[in-house]
Amino acid sequence: MSFELATVYVVGVGPGETDLLTLRAVKVLERSEVIFHPGPRDDTGFALGVVAPLLRPNQVVRGASLAMRRGPDDGTVGYERVAQLLAHEARQGRTVAFLTEGDPMLFGSGSYVAERLRSVAPDVPVEIVPGVSASSSAAARLGWPLAQKDEILTICPGTYHPDEIGEILDRGGPVCWFKAAAVLPQLVEELRRRGRLDHAALVERVGHPNERIFLDVSDALKVNLSYFSLVLVR
Amino acid sequence: MSFELATVYVVGVGPGETDLLTLRAVKVLERSEVIFHPGPRDDTGFALGVVAPLLRPNQVVRGASLAMRRGPDDGTVGYERVAQLLAHEARQGRTVAFLTEGDPMLFGSGSYVAERLRSVAPDVPVEIVPGVSASSSAAARLGWPLAQKDEILTICPGTYHPDEIGEILDRGGPVCWFKAAAVLPQLVEELRRRGRLDHAALVERVGHPNERIFLDVSDALKVNLSYFSLVLVR
Repeated sequence: MSFELATVYVVGVGPGETDLLTLRAVKVLERSEVIFHPGPRDDTGFALGVVAPLLRPNQVVRGASLAMRRGPDDGTVGYERVAQLLAHEARQGRTVAFLTEGDPMLFGSGSYVAERLRSVAPDVPVEIVPGVSASSSAAARLGWPLAQKDEILTICPGTYHPDEIGEILDRGGPVCWFKAAAVLPQLVEELRRRGRLDHAALVERVGHPNERIFLDVSDALKVNLSYFSLVLVR
Repeated sequence: MSFELATVYVVGVGPGETDLLTLRAVKVLERSEVIFHPGPRDDTGFALGVVAPLLRPNQVVRGASLAMRRGPDDGTVGYERVAQLLAHEARQGRTVAFLTEGDPMLFGSGSYVAERLRSVAPDVPVEIVPGVSASSSAAARLGWPLAQKDEILTICPGTYHPDEIGEILDRGGPVCWFKAAAVLPQLVEELRRRGRLDHAALVERVGHPNERIFLDVSDALKVNLSYFSLVLVR
């Protein structure tokens, strides 16, 4: 018995609010028989929570249980395993979606999964559905432009590059730090040294019921911050 | 006679495909009595084209006729005029939307209009609806990550900074040039000099029926390119 290859969709679900899904993402979810997400269990995960109001009881939902790892991928994060599972579904003729927070191509697990998929199953068609990034959503909440006119925007992962913070600030353009909690002490220090503390803001869990905004980022040093903390500097 | 102030919505419509609108953008459009867009005439404009399939005959549509200008805004682009028109509608109690291509805060006219609006009508509530950026959409089409792991992404407006292209490439991370047509000869030259021509791609009018993708960006030198051309370098 042979099956027609189905498409694997890598779907950006946006920064965390269901109504920031695109119409395309909604349509892909509607037609997907199996939905994988990065979360630790089938019924638990951030991206799953975003799409949960749209799912039907007859859709299969699988937590991919991806590890969160800093540094180079030594193969234990689980991207390869997920890629194999997605390819298997597609080869059985089942349309399958892999969810990813924000935009899949901007620090999203979807970009790694898509890479592995092309490598382990080059015959399987893959379509990436772009999403609203956390940076766009945070900028909208603050009413702060990410970039205007001649400005050059730098987008930096906060889990890396603590020693380059000053240098990046000295480029002069706006900067957006993803996952900023990890480097916040250094960031505050370098901003203070340059007299730019009042040009920065921190948005934690943008759009969530428990969103917090710090217009003085040094206040954020006093609290426990979520992994989903983003600093904009203008 | 007095009216309750309505909200002005600054709405990102995404890079050009109707199905890349967010559910929130669709809902805001549904409830908007008046819809402004940047286009030259009431019935003509890029952002208008994206939302056109969703509009109803009883909605008022106005082309803001914004000028396209390089360099500092000398006040003649029309942002102030549009801000006044939006404030007027809101003060009459009419919910009004201003459309902007891509994400309003990433080189979008929406960011200027929102700024002017806060300045000329601080009493009028403004809500910015983030959108999918052209960079996210182009990356999805190419299957190229914008940034992964420790990579620092630089987003540069191609209508400026021709002399800094080499320096920006030498930062080492991925780069996305918006409106790249203006600097393409310099960009190709600097990429060639660094042996990185095969690390670049150009996407013109991403998602449109007349989209073009150049995996060898030097081929794009031979054709007339649209303003909506984006170069990704990895």
